Amino acid sequence: MLNKVVIFGIGLIGGSFARALKAAGAVRHVVGVDRSQAFLARALELGYIDSAAQPGSEEAIADADLVLLAAPVAQTGRILAALAPHLQPHTIVTDAGSTKSDVVAAARAALGGKIGQFVPGHPIAGRETNGPDAAIVDLYVGKKTVLTPLPENAPEAIARVAGAWQACGAIIHTLTPEEHDKVFAAVSHLPHLLAYALVDDIERKPHSGLLFQYAASGFRDFTRIAGSSPEMWRDISLANQAALLTELDAYLAQLTRLRASLAAGDAAALEATYANAQRARRQWLAAIETAEPPQPKDTAAE
Amino acid sequence: MLNKVVIFGIGLIGGSFARALKAAGAVRHVVGVDRSQAFLARALELGYIDSAAQPGSEEAIADADLVLLAAPVAQTGRILAALAPHLQPHTIVTDAGSTKSDVVAAARAALGGKIGQFVPGHPIAGRETNGPDAAIVDLYVGKKTVLTPLPENAPEAIARVAGAWQACGAIIHTLTPEEHDKVFAAVSHLPHLLAYALVDDIERKPHSGLLFQYAASGFRDFTRIAGSSPEMWRDISLANQAALLTELDAYLAQLTRLRASLAAGDAAALEATYANAQRARRQWLAAIETAEPPQPKDTAAE
Repeated sequence: MLNKVVIFGIGLIGGSFARALKAAGAVRHVVGVDRSQAFLARALELGYIDSAAQPGSEEAIADADLVLLAAPVAQTGRILAALAPHLQPHTIVTDAGSTKSDVVAAARAALGGKIGQFVPGHPIAGRETNGPDAAIVDLYVGKKTVLTPLPENAPEAIARVAGAWQACGAIIHTLTPEEHDKVFAAVSHLPHLLAYALVDDIERKPHSGLLFQYAASGFRDFTRIAGSSPEMWRDISLANQAALLTELDAYLAQLTRLRASLAAGDAAALEATYANAQRARRQWLAAIETAEPPQPKDTAAE
Repeated sequence: MLNKVVIFGIGLIGGSFARALKAAGAVRHVVGVDRSQAFLARALELGYIDSAAQPGSEEAIADADLVLLAAPVAQTGRILAALAPHLQPHTIVTDAGSTKSDVVAAARAALGGKIGQFVPGHPIAGRETNGPDAAIVDLYVGKKTVLTPLPENAPEAIARVAGAWQACGAIIHTLTPEEHDKVFAAVSHLPHLLAYALVDDIERKPHSGLLFQYAASGFRDFTRIAGSSPEMWRDISLANQAALLTELDAYLAQLTRLRASLAAGDAAALEATYANAQRARRQWLAAIETAEPPQPKDTAAE
């Protein structure tokens, strides 16, 4: 049982964490910290935070067992620098950012000798709604939370963060920050960039109205992630610039090969690529749907 | 009321056409033509065809008001050449192929002076299942069917094909074959190629197992269309080679621009692209969901 949990950012990610911990009976007192007074008021009303604080009042973290940073990832360094002087030795801090190498660098700069108290994390869950009313109790049930522990983290610190996510129903995975960023560059950040690029490309064509008129369900699903927050994905793209460039270059090389096959009318090469993709996707889908049933809704973020 | 309709290929597309015509009371007699004796037997059993014929027995089309070609598009020329000598002046032929310029060329070669009896079409509907049991009565309800009439088509010929699709619940749109192929290269054929390319690219990486382990719902939807038939999409890619190359080149140029913005750390340029895409997609989604409610299933073809 955690005595006091402090959550910076009490929208979808932070609010769902609070709701799940409370539902599991895993926390006594939740402090919500948010720039938005309206969000704080609503979270108090919904009952998933017990007290509210503004970002300036870092004494809110006094006596906390656990601090979760669930504000936009660009604010991580600033938040950590502000709370560093108030950080007591028994308090463990974690985050929910979609990139990890940049977060670790910001945390090292902000926390200095207290870096061992910071256990980086990334819950692999989301939807396109946000704000306190978007917070749901089962957002993390059966979903992965990736922790990317640092050499300075004590096993107890890692265990406290893992235990909180497990209380929310999440399954803990562990990667290094670099592995994490390479993996998500390939399976998440690149697809987002590609989807945004396609919709933007079509929108800028002179006959875009005609094109959109005939776009159907395949286009809708392919571009669903282009419904995600542009600011958030701008930040993720830049935070994971090196790994994303590597994946984008590999994909550009793949498209260039496929273009050559298409231009040459090489039916066998096209079919080999398409068939390999279909087979690999089916195999993956069979594996993943066992673990995570599909969500039918038009959810955008993850 | 059509007296006799002959359907080549009685799986999802042809079978759903038959079911819908029958349900609407718009046809007296449906002849199913298929290579598969099992498909024919099952379609007879399900009652949506009244008699069955093998592809060789082209006398089946005698006295037909309407012939629909719903076999794989690569067979179009061969089927038309075989039925041309048996084609009576009052019989109108249409098709359901995903590309139109190549179908028109094949039809001109096969039908010669009878080309006025061929009205090309493309119903914008589908799902990843196939065979007689996949055929459903409402596949076309509220969906677009694009006709690409030829200068040689009499207005009555076009009206007969349009009337049959309308009886199935479809909304008729008209494009030239060239417009059709350019539009679908952009909004359907290119996304399919891109999705296949991404899954194949990831599958061929040495650490693909790790990558697939963390692929989540965004990846699933982005790559849904990579679950489609490799043979069908090989044929569509090659049938629409010129328009698809044009769209692919425009997209490669777009990705190259976006890569430069990413490499330069140009946050404003990235955000402008992402935000324009999000805005355009939201606008499109609001328009399309009014007309076509989303299908929650993991459907692949369209």
